[in-house]
Amino acid sequence: MPTDTFTWKNKITALLQTQYPIIQAPMFGVATPQMVAAAGEIGVLGTLPLGDLPASKCIELIRATKQLTDRPFAVNVFLNPLPERTAELKKQYTRTKKYLEDFAKQVDLEVKLADYEQVVYTDYRDQVDAIIAEGCKIVSFTFGVFDEATIAKMKQHNIILIGTCTAVAEARVLEQKGIDLICVQGIEAGGHQGTFLTETLPEIGGLSLLAQVKDAVKTPLIYAGGLYNASTIVAIKALGAQGFAIGSLLMGSEESNLAEFEKEALRQAKESDLVLTKSFSGRYARGLSNTFTNQLDHSDYILPYPFQNKLTIGLRIAAKTNKNPEFSSLWTGQSRGPYSGASIKVILSQLIQEVETYKP
Amino acid sequence: MPTDTFTWKNKITALLQTQYPIIQAPMFGVATPQMVAAAGEIGVLGTLPLGDLPASKCIELIRATKQLTDRPFAVNVFLNPLPERTAELKKQYTRTKKYLEDFAKQVDLEVKLADYEQVVYTDYRDQVDAIIAEGCKIVSFTFGVFDEATIAKMKQHNIILIGTCTAVAEARVLEQKGIDLICVQGIEAGGHQGTFLTETLPEIGGLSLLAQVKDAVKTPLIYAGGLYNASTIVAIKALGAQGFAIGSLLMGSEESNLAEFEKEALRQAKESDLVLTKSFSGRYARGLSNTFTNQLDHSDYILPYPFQNKLTIGLRIAAKTNKNPEFSSLWTGQSRGPYSGASIKVILSQLIQEVETYKP
Repeated sequence: MPTDTFTWKNKITALLQTQYPIIQAPMFGVATPQMVAAAGEIGVLGTLPLGDLPASKCIELIRATKQLTDRPFAVNVFLNPLPERTAELKKQYTRTKKYLEDFAKQVDLEVKLADYEQVVYTDYRDQVDAIIAEGCKIVSFTFGVFDEATIAKMKQHNIILIGTCTAVAEARVLEQKGIDLICVQGIEAGGHQGTFLTETLPEIGGLSLLAQVKDAVKTPLIYAGGLYNASTIVAIKALGAQGFAIGSLLMGSEESNLAEFEKEALRQAKESDLVLTKSFSGRYARGLSNTFTNQLDHSDYILPYPFQNKLTIGLRIAAKTNKNPEFSSLWTGQSRGPYSGASIKVILSQLIQEVETYKP
Repeated sequence: MPTDTFTWKNKITALLQTQYPIIQAPMFGVATPQMVAAAGEIGVLGTLPLGDLPASKCIELIRATKQLTDRPFAVNVFLNPLPERTAELKKQYTRTKKYLEDFAKQVDLEVKLADYEQVVYTDYRDQVDAIIAEGCKIVSFTFGVFDEATIAKMKQHNIILIGTCTAVAEARVLEQKGIDLICVQGIEAGGHQGTFLTETLPEIGGLSLLAQVKDAVKTPLIYAGGLYNASTIVAIKALGAQGFAIGSLLMGSEESNLAEFEKEALRQAKESDLVLTKSFSGRYARGLSNTFTNQLDHSDYILPYPFQNKLTIGLRIAAKTNKNPEFSSLWTGQSRGPYSGASIKVILSQLIQEVETYKP
């Protein structure tokens, strides 16, 4: 029986100008300029996570990446709506800060947690101005969609926009707003779920979500969530995606920002250790359950994003310094890969070769 | 470029002696002897849901099916562990019964709910004896695994056993117990999640779960959850399943036991109407949210399975009689199909043809 050779070239490689329609996922806190550059060097699209960092920090990271590679890379920003800063919110913040300080004391972690006033909002338009000034041409975004004026401005600069959806309804919104590529994120995905239209998570499995988004929109699709080997990529291609976002598979790599004890925690974790938790950031993210998530998830000490996120940073820094996985946020997806410690080049080359030689 | 013709013949068609390795899923309350027979007549394996019905009722349903078809069909039984009948459980039952009676009265539903003493456990060994006596050769099961003596007894009668898993750990248990085929159920699936090793649901997306089960066991795999068109079936084949279980796609069919108002409710429902709820049965099942699920899910009026299940039967019967979808259990999966009202023969033939002519 004749076998199809796996074809990489498609609308996405043409648009992104990469050899492979593979995207290194924007793992904030894990993906470094080194990782982004290494991905680019082998023909994959690296994504530099800018989160909600201030413009000056965005510029620093973009320039660090450009020093390492001439290849195209994407930057990713968070578009979470910012809560109104009310007296009640300030009260809850203060209360939660005290609770976390007491908790940290109980476990002998010395922490310095941000005060309410130190939580400063980033205006994504400042990030966008920096991105444009630095000549970035590919911008992916999560937790929302840019306002129309900003979209128009970026399109004037020939920027390719990649949005994230976790429901068919969200995909339709992105298409209607003129977004160039839609990244379909299944419930399998590690890290934060990019849901933006609803308070509750749709929690749709990738197989079902991707197939239905493909039926619903014409925009070319990238898929993220659970991809770790040849069969998952071949399957996602059959479902209609042209781009393949890889995250968890790269977390153990040389270029990953994770410390060795964090990589070990990932390798040792069991299937049943994964949880969707709001405890670290105020938004649902998938990762390893631990002492912190177990306690906070059933408490009323979870502030809305970005307040919980900013507040727990000090705790996470202390945990990392003390090599304490019980208070670290270890985001990872449902495909329990080997978390190889090899280089990005080795890991991705191996994946590419597996796909090319895959026989069902 | 040469195109592979989709091959249906595999280990599963050989073992089950069907033309297609497609299984009509065991939808308790929806799949009738007529549906099972119709599936068999076109070369698909129908599954007759026996749930936890007493042996006499099992015999009745098996015989009704055998009158309609000579083709092989599976029967499916529930193996949920049965809770100890304590004084506390009786107290909770009585309290929940009163709560539901008051609730029903508020919404003008005349109900007759079972008393605690009327909840009688089925011993699955009685079901198995009936199944053996009636000459059934394919037995699928959910919520647990048979004891070893029963497995040995069924194997002595050349019965093919099909277990259900929702985690890699569960697949390993099934393989270790000598089960012939493993049905991998993704979080996409409608109806009850077949989880049996843990209290909490693993909630793993099918793409990720199937790929990892394929890596972990040698037993041939069936996949269930979210299959509704050619691309999902082709994808699942790429992931390593040889059997394809179809449920939701058949719910609107002529042979379905659902009333027209229930089929309409499914057709009108939105993506955001799906929920995993324990409210009707005491175990998590996926279906349409409604007045009943919304109220009960955040209450402490949910008894363990099978008590909640037996208690709410009277309410669901009254809802069906009164054409009231707000108190009906309308189980369905995440792939929001058309719920075609055509016959099983038409729906499945169309699906088979789509798969055979599928071009990526």
